[in-house]
Amino acid sequence: MNKPIFYHAGCSVCVSAEHDIVNLIGADNVEVVHLGEQKSRIAAAEQVGVKSVPALVTPNGNVLHLNYGASIEDVKG
Amino acid sequence: MNKPIFYHAGCSVCVSAEHDIVNLIGADNVEVVHLGEQKSRIAAAEQVGVKSVPALVTPNGNVLHLNYGASIEDVKG
Repeated sequence: MNKPIFYHAGCSVCVSAEHDIVNLIGADNVEVVHLGEQKSRIAAAEQVGVKSVPALVTPNGNVLHLNYGASIEDVKG
Repeated sequence: MNKPIFYHAGCSVCVSAEHDIVNLIGADNVEVVHLGEQKSRIAAAEQVGVKSVPALVTPNGNVLHLNYGASIEDVKG
């Protein structure tokens, strides 16, 4: 099984949600991607449907947008 | 440690998110509450900050609103 991917951009809402997800799932069971620092991964995130961060993409490809930190457009900017 | 609580109201967005969360965390590790069927628990959900469903309340009391199914006001109605 692929790992879920947690996409964020360093915002306070993102960091808080990251802690929650890591606590719930375990740090070894989720890949954390900072789109502000890894802009090359923005396209793949958008392709699976990530519209804002923080967001968790499940192994079967569903996107869970967690609260709202910033739009993907803001992250690109 | 308390279990996280997943609040929902039976909507399609809720059911999809419920499957995702149960798959990620494990069915034994999360309490699932259907606020449409357990209206007596709406007050407690609101008190911790649940504004819409589906939402996951972590053991430390943070609220993660997952996507957007319905507002808590709609669930009361």
